[in-house]
Amino acid sequence: MGSLNNVETTNKPINPLDPEEFRKQAHLVVDFIADYYSNIEQYPVCSQVKPGFLTETMLKLAPLEPEPIETIMQDVQNHIIPGLTHWESPGFFAFFPCTASIGNFLGEMLITGFNAIPFNWLASPAATELEMVVLEWVLNLLQLPKSFWFSSDGGGVLLGSTCEALVCTLVAAREKKLSKVAAEEGVLEKMVIYCSDQTHFSLKKACGVVGISPQNVRAIVTTKSMNYELSSLALLNAIETDLRSGLIPLYVCLTVGTTQTTAVDPLGTLCEIANRFDMWVHVDAAYAGSACICPEFRHFLDGVEEATSFSFNPHKWFLTTLDCCCLWVKDRTVYTKALSSDPEYLKNKPSESKQVVDYKDWQISLTRRFKAMKLWMVLRMHGASGLREFIRKQVKMAQHFEKLLSRDKRFELVVPRNFATLCFRLLLANQSSCDGDINMLNKQLLESLNATGRVYMTHAVVEGVYVIRVSIGAVLAQDKHVSMLWDLLQEHAEVLLAKYVTPQVISTLV
Amino acid sequence: MGSLNNVETTNKPINPLDPEEFRKQAHLVVDFIADYYSNIEQYPVCSQVKPGFLTETMLKLAPLEPEPIETIMQDVQNHIIPGLTHWESPGFFAFFPCTASIGNFLGEMLITGFNAIPFNWLASPAATELEMVVLEWVLNLLQLPKSFWFSSDGGGVLLGSTCEALVCTLVAAREKKLSKVAAEEGVLEKMVIYCSDQTHFSLKKACGVVGISPQNVRAIVTTKSMNYELSSLALLNAIETDLRSGLIPLYVCLTVGTTQTTAVDPLGTLCEIANRFDMWVHVDAAYAGSACICPEFRHFLDGVEEATSFSFNPHKWFLTTLDCCCLWVKDRTVYTKALSSDPEYLKNKPSESKQVVDYKDWQISLTRRFKAMKLWMVLRMHGASGLREFIRKQVKMAQHFEKLLSRDKRFELVVPRNFATLCFRLLLANQSSCDGDINMLNKQLLESLNATGRVYMTHAVVEGVYVIRVSIGAVLAQDKHVSMLWDLLQEHAEVLLAKYVTPQVISTLV
Repeated sequence: MGSLNNVETTNKPINPLDPEEFRKQAHLVVDFIADYYSNIEQYPVCSQVKPGFLTETMLKLAPLEPEPIETIMQDVQNHIIPGLTHWESPGFFAFFPCTASIGNFLGEMLITGFNAIPFNWLASPAATELEMVVLEWVLNLLQLPKSFWFSSDGGGVLLGSTCEALVCTLVAAREKKLSKVAAEEGVLEKMVIYCSDQTHFSLKKACGVVGISPQNVRAIVTTKSMNYELSSLALLNAIETDLRSGLIPLYVCLTVGTTQTTAVDPLGTLCEIANRFDMWVHVDAAYAGSACICPEFRHFLDGVEEATSFSFNPHKWFLTTLDCCCLWVKDRTVYTKALSSDPEYLKNKPSESKQVVDYKDWQISLTRRFKAMKLWMVLRMHGASGLREFIRKQVKMAQHFEKLLSRDKRFELVVPRNFATLCFRLLLANQSSCDGDINMLNKQLLESLNATGRVYMTHAVVEGVYVIRVSIGAVLAQDKHVSMLWDLLQEHAEVLLAKYVTPQVISTLV
Repeated sequence: MGSLNNVETTNKPINPLDPEEFRKQAHLVVDFIADYYSNIEQYPVCSQVKPGFLTETMLKLAPLEPEPIETIMQDVQNHIIPGLTHWESPGFFAFFPCTASIGNFLGEMLITGFNAIPFNWLASPAATELEMVVLEWVLNLLQLPKSFWFSSDGGGVLLGSTCEALVCTLVAAREKKLSKVAAEEGVLEKMVIYCSDQTHFSLKKACGVVGISPQNVRAIVTTKSMNYELSSLALLNAIETDLRSGLIPLYVCLTVGTTQTTAVDPLGTLCEIANRFDMWVHVDAAYAGSACICPEFRHFLDGVEEATSFSFNPHKWFLTTLDCCCLWVKDRTVYTKALSSDPEYLKNKPSESKQVVDYKDWQISLTRRFKAMKLWMVLRMHGASGLREFIRKQVKMAQHFEKLLSRDKRFELVVPRNFATLCFRLLLANQSSCDGDINMLNKQLLESLNATGRVYMTHAVVEGVYVIRVSIGAVLAQDKHVSMLWDLLQEHAEVLLAKYVTPQVISTLV
């Protein structure tokens, strides 16, 4: 037991949550952030600091005494901001967008302010029920079938990431299968997972977490001729081959909007095949799910009604910040059986009545944030029409950029555009140029564009072809930013092409 | 590809992140939350709504058009707040505290404002390096050995929860062992995990996630005579028994401050035994780790230098809100080998230089929030001395409550107090009363106290004894709230005891 000797004393009365101090200092930070958004274009989009810029300069010891907010915010301005990559900058075209909004911000303030921890219903009934309300709203916006809802045998939950959704559904699929197959040694080593070579790497990682060896993950090869979609014939062949080897096909992950090229796997036929072998089918629409609230994009989800589970990330393109992933499952009994536990200290009457949802049984961790609040605020403050308008505006900008690209014969659009992400490359006029040279050229082009600090884009490699990826989606991006990107692209392409004489020259430029 | 027919139009120009709108509305919500803290005592601590109160009344469809902030905040006040259990209320003595603070709130505002996603260094260098800085600060405050730091072979990371820390370390331990033992069928089924029957249930759940069967989790029985600490002899016996059966001892989880009674496993001797068998030892100090920044409590961590990994949750008792769990490991190569991946689209020069930390390789998910910001703000705004003062104030209140309890012979303190959590029960004067009667009495007492809405406490059951748990820790709690709790407790105990005539009467009161 601790004694109370050696107590340090300070003269200030202690209330780290004093409402009037809170009010004063939080107002100050609101203004700081509003100013940050006003000035965001003055910062290089991708940070240009060097490794160790902060770890080598910051003190190794925490401050002993409290410091004034003014000093701290000055450090944020002078030392933190230069080291940020500005995901909300209108010049951010990298990865996928991660879209902040006013509604989301206010929701996050309330989440932190209330700090309710809804691991079970009683721990904050409003947090659990608002999660159910908002997930039903989104289910309806996406026109997902009612079989994914609590009124049938299904249900939904807000998780932190797609990877978490994959781990949870893999565990549920594994436990379901284990309860059906004969209990024999090494049965876990026989379970096989299927996806395409375009599936997000998180699936392989999630398999590793749940104890499925990488050797049992079949990443089926896709091709340009099929727009990098998973072929149903190839899936069928892979499953049948594994069955002949005595393996157990367990789970297939389909993607609506793959990470590299936003390819859309044909859900209908693929689900049909998987269901034939009693497999779990998860549909990951992390990025493109958002677009599917617009009727003109909804067809990309056709066939989802035959899936076992479906997830998408509002924290990508749905005006919501990290972390927020919606997962719906068709059989909540199977799903929660694999993840639930009932320790004594959490026992309570509402849970025992079975009339409530205890979300601790829907995820890996016990603790959870009141995430529903921010998604609810986003939907109320911006409305379904606001979200659709936002998505459509971005798609229009992408269409415009696509048109500019397609008119300029120096560029090649490597895959057709599905949403607001484009994959293209600069070509070499010399017909004999090999892909290696063109790859190097595009790598240089991307690096020189990013080095300007005005834009940040990333790359992908499909069938050995290096492509520059532009994902339009930053909330603050307007037409003028797409024009700026186009001007920059032309300017840097011209400089590079002018330098180009022979492939050898390119090599020396690296 | 989508067509743009059927586009809904609204008349408002769209900028969901307009800085001036942001400023106006965020100021409004700051005031709302400051007022909430000022008025928090007027709400019942544990929500008293009925299941379905929100799901049955809210609309099933998301609003089509944006709604004004005033309408939304009125709904928060009228429909959400009554359904909250108020974790920041000074009458909240349930579970463990989950402590908000001004520093934390400002940090969360900046996290959301910047929305930086530091999955690798380049995606926001400041977020990664600030995480390293702040984890070194806390490491030093806890006087953890340097072997847990990057300057040796170790390192630290901010995760979402202890359960996540358990999953990650279990995966690392499993992969390390798999690389050493002969690859034979069913080897995974042979791995065994050890803990005490007081270990948090998350361990069993984490084992389930990573594919270790519940049958292979040894929850070693603890007793009151040993203050519910894990016995080293019992651990040794369990390991040797399993070895004789051809099983593979893999991992032991030790706890500093167990969930039920805040027992502290003797780290030194237990680590010594585990190391003898080349096992992974994780030390979980989720709650009590915070106290160990005070020199007078540091001895509870003695022996941690021999552990493989250590975690504690600032989101419990360290003025930080969900989610924030610090994990340190001694061998970062082994740890990250099990969790890393290197997809093409994330390749970048700093990562390839190996000069930087890519935190994606330290956790389950790819995406992550800029959590370091809030822990950094807490430490700078409140200072190490402020945090120690906060902890000591709560411990003093717990000592005071302990004194009141020990002077009143109607109550029994069931286990000695280590920190600021107390486990006690009301006794029956009748010597012949059995534990069952006393349990029922205490269950009724707890229910009647919670029903007042002025306090919220939870319970535990140790060796069949039902105890009421008071965990003092709410940031807004002052001496007067502990006095209020004591007065309420006496009042309700008197009423109950007066009703008590025979054990049969108690049964009829249920």
